[in-house]
Amino acid sequence: MSAPIIAIDAMGGDFGPRCIVPASIASLVEFPSLNLVLVGQAPLLEGLIARHSGVDRSRLRVEHAGEVVAMDERPAQVLRGKPDSSMRVALEVLRSGNAQACVSAGNTGALMALSRYVLKTLPGIDRPAMVAAIPTSRGHCHLLDLGANVDCSAEHLYQFAVMGVVAAEALGISSPRLALLNVGTEDIKGNQQVKLAASLLQQAKGLNYIGYIEGDGLYRGEADVVVCDGFVGNILLKSSEGLASMISARMEALFKQSLGSRLVGSLALPLLRRLQGDLAPARHNGASFLGLQGIVVKSHGSAGPDGFQSAIRRALSEVREDLPQRLHDRLEHLLL
Amino acid sequence: MSAPIIAIDAMGGDFGPRCIVPASIASLVEFPSLNLVLVGQAPLLEGLIARHSGVDRSRLRVEHAGEVVAMDERPAQVLRGKPDSSMRVALEVLRSGNAQACVSAGNTGALMALSRYVLKTLPGIDRPAMVAAIPTSRGHCHLLDLGANVDCSAEHLYQFAVMGVVAAEALGISSPRLALLNVGTEDIKGNQQVKLAASLLQQAKGLNYIGYIEGDGLYRGEADVVVCDGFVGNILLKSSEGLASMISARMEALFKQSLGSRLVGSLALPLLRRLQGDLAPARHNGASFLGLQGIVVKSHGSAGPDGFQSAIRRALSEVREDLPQRLHDRLEHLLL
Repeated sequence: MSAPIIAIDAMGGDFGPRCIVPASIASLVEFPSLNLVLVGQAPLLEGLIARHSGVDRSRLRVEHAGEVVAMDERPAQVLRGKPDSSMRVALEVLRSGNAQACVSAGNTGALMALSRYVLKTLPGIDRPAMVAAIPTSRGHCHLLDLGANVDCSAEHLYQFAVMGVVAAEALGISSPRLALLNVGTEDIKGNQQVKLAASLLQQAKGLNYIGYIEGDGLYRGEADVVVCDGFVGNILLKSSEGLASMISARMEALFKQSLGSRLVGSLALPLLRRLQGDLAPARHNGASFLGLQGIVVKSHGSAGPDGFQSAIRRALSEVREDLPQRLHDRLEHLLL
Repeated sequence: MSAPIIAIDAMGGDFGPRCIVPASIASLVEFPSLNLVLVGQAPLLEGLIARHSGVDRSRLRVEHAGEVVAMDERPAQVLRGKPDSSMRVALEVLRSGNAQACVSAGNTGALMALSRYVLKTLPGIDRPAMVAAIPTSRGHCHLLDLGANVDCSAEHLYQFAVMGVVAAEALGISSPRLALLNVGTEDIKGNQQVKLAASLLQQAKGLNYIGYIEGDGLYRGEADVVVCDGFVGNILLKSSEGLASMISARMEALFKQSLGSRLVGSLALPLLRRLQGDLAPARHNGASFLGLQGIVVKSHGSAGPDGFQSAIRRALSEVREDLPQRLHDRLEHLLL
């Protein structure tokens, strides 16, 4: 395969280009065949690049885009009113074939709306979904949707399931155990959409559907792919991040106060922090938009350079796996 | 007030009367004015009571009920087919005025269905909700609904909000900060039910409604009462329990392996376990059903004697606060 090119929305996220430019340059060092297109306000970006020495400019191109999508801007407003935003121009670079993936840390809703508008969805997919790997007792679980779709029909959940399985397979998990998130594991449990989605999944061939899973089962690692609507997924992800932070803070306080031992604290705190990082995977590793005619990875808005670099890494691995084509091929067989 | 009487479904939960009888006897010791009615298979219960010495039988009555509700039985089946279950008879004892509260560790769905059927809801309340206090960085947050209602309209969410506020006030929180759980804090975020519930709450007088809250804000303690539908609440609660368990297990493993110091482990592990207990409040403290014409507290199915005793404690405090009457009075002013 030829040298991969990734288009970077260099203006998004809480920290903007000051975080994204160094992360991009670090990625060029990490992957010697990688090419990047940094999209955003060219003078600003060139100024930031110039601070680094030894940058291989033959692999780093800057594409100017005058506008920036604010983190709290409405998706509809961005679609209509900002034709020259860095986010949109980065997606256009991808659509026109001048890149194989796009990475942004910007406004999630706007990125989803623009991605759908610019790239379109794969045949048979009504709505793209957002997926991330969250840690479990046994490894990781790929949870989707994480917030792109707050209202979902049974058919949407079914499509998410198929996409989640294909994405997990592309990451090397063979015959991933697929489950629907529900309030109980008995057949009678759940709302109408979930029950209907279960009956669709039971009929589907070639999926390792294991049934319902509860919130605790997810963290016990009982499934490799877990499907829910974006309202539930977003709340599960954010409450888990909040709980992990709270536990870390309490443990720090307990170790500092109760034990009164600097030794214990100095041994325990790095472990706690590593664990906390582990538990905020979206913040650290990025989340993929699945179901588009192109690869889009969303880095967490509050991610630092390491987090953004992880998102680039994720995008690159999806390019290497040719994820949209794999999805397209499998969807033909699996969609209703 | 006269000596409080609590009816106990002595047959429910994963451990049944072997856990519930000792917990009940311990509660009689803890509260010298408390009276209990143990409902279940009389010979079995009498046999278990007889193992304890010094039990004040003038405050402990056994009421026979021949049937037991299985943990996986369908609520509709229980309603129609088990008129003599310990769960139902305990609720009848409450309804007939021979007790002021009922505590059960049995099948949640069946307990909710039977409670609604036997006790009826308060005027203006369509559906009872389940509430429990979960720990936050700043104290506790009263989260409802926790699983009683998987599909909720905006009006249901509004009713839950009013009930949650009154229950929090009864627990001594003045002007509790009330929030709706959502996928973002901006007005445009969320599904139709949540947006409509927000506009109902904005119009309501006498409620300290602070707007939307996200999953991480909940654990940061940004609200005292957080409202969501039972699908979301149940998944949030169970995933939090699962995550807390996973973190504890990882910390134990880290301390045991990486530090190689028995001293650190022996200091850290008790703290971890205390924290874990803290984070499974439903398991330890019970959850209340709000909106019924009577007090019903659900002890976690897997609760041990301590957990069941906590549920009795919670029921007793609701009796002392006369929670259903307080709810009735406030609802008259607040319901639409």
